[in-house]
Amino acid sequence: DIVDAALAVVRPNDLAGRRIVITAGGTREPLDPVRFIGNRSSGRQGIALAEAARDRGAHVTLLVAHLEVPPPRGVALVEVGTAAELSDAVAEHAAHADIVIMAAAVADYRPVEVADGKLKKEALGDELTVHLVANPDILRSLTSGTLTPHRPDGQVVVGFAAETEADDERFLQIGREKAARKGADLLVVNRVGWQLGFATESNTIVVLDRTGSIVGEAAGDKVSVAHRILDLLV
Amino acid sequence: DIVDAALAVVRPNDLAGRRIVITAGGTREPLDPVRFIGNRSSGRQGIALAEAARDRGAHVTLLVAHLEVPPPRGVALVEVGTAAELSDAVAEHAAHADIVIMAAAVADYRPVEVADGKLKKEALGDELTVHLVANPDILRSLTSGTLTPHRPDGQVVVGFAAETEADDERFLQIGREKAARKGADLLVVNRVGWQLGFATESNTIVVLDRTGSIVGEAAGDKVSVAHRILDLLV
Repeated sequence: DIVDAALAVVRPNDLAGRRIVITAGGTREPLDPVRFIGNRSSGRQGIALAEAARDRGAHVTLLVAHLEVPPPRGVALVEVGTAAELSDAVAEHAAHADIVIMAAAVADYRPVEVADGKLKKEALGDELTVHLVANPDILRSLTSGTLTPHRPDGQVVVGFAAETEADDERFLQIGREKAARKGADLLVVNRVGWQLGFATESNTIVVLDRTGSIVGEAAGDKVSVAHRILDLLV
Repeated sequence: DIVDAALAVVRPNDLAGRRIVITAGGTREPLDPVRFIGNRSSGRQGIALAEAARDRGAHVTLLVAHLEVPPPRGVALVEVGTAAELSDAVAEHAAHADIVIMAAAVADYRPVEVADGKLKKEALGDELTVHLVANPDILRSLTSGTLTPHRPDGQVVVGFAAETEADDERFLQIGREKAARKGADLLVVNRVGWQLGFATESNTIVVLDRTGSIVGEAAGDKVSVAHRILDLLV
């Protein structure tokens, strides 16, 4: 429409030709064919990043897990379910990417056993114990070079951390420790909670570099926040 | 549009004035502010039932848990999250309903403990054990009269059972045992699986009465299936 046309004129084409892989949504780890352990990521921030990057001229590949919103047009779409499937997709597509932005919420744990048929309450009784095991850390595997043997030289990796810590200082400290541990070039830290961060149109973020220094901050609708993140990558 | 107008002429108004409560979607049981145990119900069959009942003249109250599709217009909408919230909503609204159709997939189990802040992998380590406890059976509580003290005389209750059993005979036997146990007037049994039943536009169902006799069968798009179920209630 007219607004889009006007924006297209003023919008920089500063990511023209860049190959960007973005992950969005939340992975799910099945317990059986019916039940799964999921997380509340809606995919909105990842999709806003994909749309913003596309509008700035990038070739975008979007790896999506269980979006609650429609995926954008004009990007290559790869659908995955579990953390293991997302890991495989990142390994494949990051091998040819200038920039990788890991905005999806990836399950830290998966059930040790996945039942072929629906678990029945009549057979299980009133209590059930589920044993979980940690999933590989996709972001850490990517930055350490163990995920994809042929990462392009100069590839920039952006990680995301959703934290519930309410105290500002401890929130930032958790982000700094994660920035050091994950090895991403940038780590976008945002606060989430029972009423905060998920399935909303707006977001508040702090961007840290690998040393934990704040290199950017943004608050507002997720598209504006997406452009502020991309501003740090051009 | 024209098709809707034509259908409105030929469609019976045979539920005019009936008060129908329908549950749809899948409940989620939180582990912490980020993670939850969910199920793969999309809410499509429940929504198709609500639309079909509305089109046949009923006053529809739709109790929804985490729909993957937009809710219909022209019905009263109540949003819930967990099985406990759905139980409260059913208790409140079933007290004034002529028909209650329980199409939502309700979590059989919930975590014993719900963490206030996000569980951290760094603190938990590589393995995690989650203790679950059975949720109250909403359908059984409704039919036995313990959920709502003032159920209207003659209220009809329809339950749903999603089963993964592949063998037709055992599938039906599981349905019959459930029909006897749940005490609903009708039990709609459908087959689900890794690739079956969820997030699809079509469905295949068998309807049993309380004694386990087959009183209806339907296959096709979920709106047609909804009308076949309602045909049994007029």
